[in-house]
Amino acid sequence: MTGAPVAVALLHYPVYDRNRRTVVSAVTNLDLHDIARAARTFGLLRYYVVTPACEQQRLALQIIEHWQEGYGATYNPKRKAALDLVTVKSTLDDVLRDFEEEYGVTPCLVATGAAAAATVTYPGFRQQLQVSTRPHLLLFGTGWGLADEVMATADIILPPVKGPGEYNHLSVRSAVAIILDRLFGE
Amino acid sequence: MTGAPVAVALLHYPVYDRNRRTVVSAVTNLDLHDIARAARTFGLLRYYVVTPACEQQRLALQIIEHWQEGYGATYNPKRKAALDLVTVKSTLDDVLRDFEEEYGVTPCLVATGAAAAATVTYPGFRQQLQVSTRPHLLLFGTGWGLADEVMATADIILPPVKGPGEYNHLSVRSAVAIILDRLFGE
Repeated sequence: MTGAPVAVALLHYPVYDRNRRTVVSAVTNLDLHDIARAARTFGLLRYYVVTPACEQQRLALQIIEHWQEGYGATYNPKRKAALDLVTVKSTLDDVLRDFEEEYGVTPCLVATGAAAAATVTYPGFRQQLQVSTRPHLLLFGTGWGLADEVMATADIILPPVKGPGEYNHLSVRSAVAIILDRLFGE
Repeated sequence: MTGAPVAVALLHYPVYDRNRRTVVSAVTNLDLHDIARAARTFGLLRYYVVTPACEQQRLALQIIEHWQEGYGATYNPKRKAALDLVTVKSTLDDVLRDFEEEYGVTPCLVATGAAAAATVTYPGFRQQLQVSTRPHLLLFGTGWGLADEVMATADIILPPVKGPGEYNHLSVRSAVAIILDRLFGE
């Protein structure tokens, strides 16, 4: 990939539930697979899966290991190539430390928010990434979205993904796929 | 939605497995949810889930019913609005009959294929849909993709979704989300 090095992080905490309570959401098998495959397809550096829950970390590591070293690695090497991108971390701070160790610089934090808060357009940010060398980290939340304290740390807010109508409830897997396509698709 | 009425069909038969054998693939819970939510977000008419296997049809109907009439309908009305779009059919022919009864015309069949076979570009087809009134049906295959005999019935072939590299193994959920965004996204 030419342009800025970009990674993605999927946060399972702090995120909101349907009643806007801050919760730890559950790691799901297909969040790992679908987002890893999209991250690999669109040339990302790394896919951080972030949860403070130890048993959830273990579950994520077991799934990854199955496809990297277990029966899955020979059954489907394409999945191995995707899941090689996944790193499991406890907190966003741990992700940032890992990123800084690797690249020697704090990444520019990018989140997706309500329309009013957007600081860039997709075509504008796509162009910006092509000419930048600064590493960027795309943040996504599970459940009902990233808690306000995470949104507040973002340097860049992308507009929400919308269709022609009012309904706007994509899965996080679909939202990640669409946003990566808008930023890096052919 | 202005422009052409568009529906999507997810075929579980005839599709290829990893060894290019024609198989009936399994209905998965998240294929129902993610694609229904994307179809609703991007203003589609209907989401046909196509499988000839009776027990798979029953599974799909149970999931839909849970979110339409069961506990799920009150727990999460947004899911109900998405799953209201889903119709389960045995074969593509049954889908076409349903479509013709509803709209009095055979839909234009659209599939996604290898780069060489593409008959349109995404921006070109997007524009075409905006000015057309003819109903279109987007066909997607689970497993390792739609069997050749289905591809041969398509009137329009869209290019595959690609990133900057060679890796090109998105989940069908991600591919549908990206293609709907390319065709109908804001």
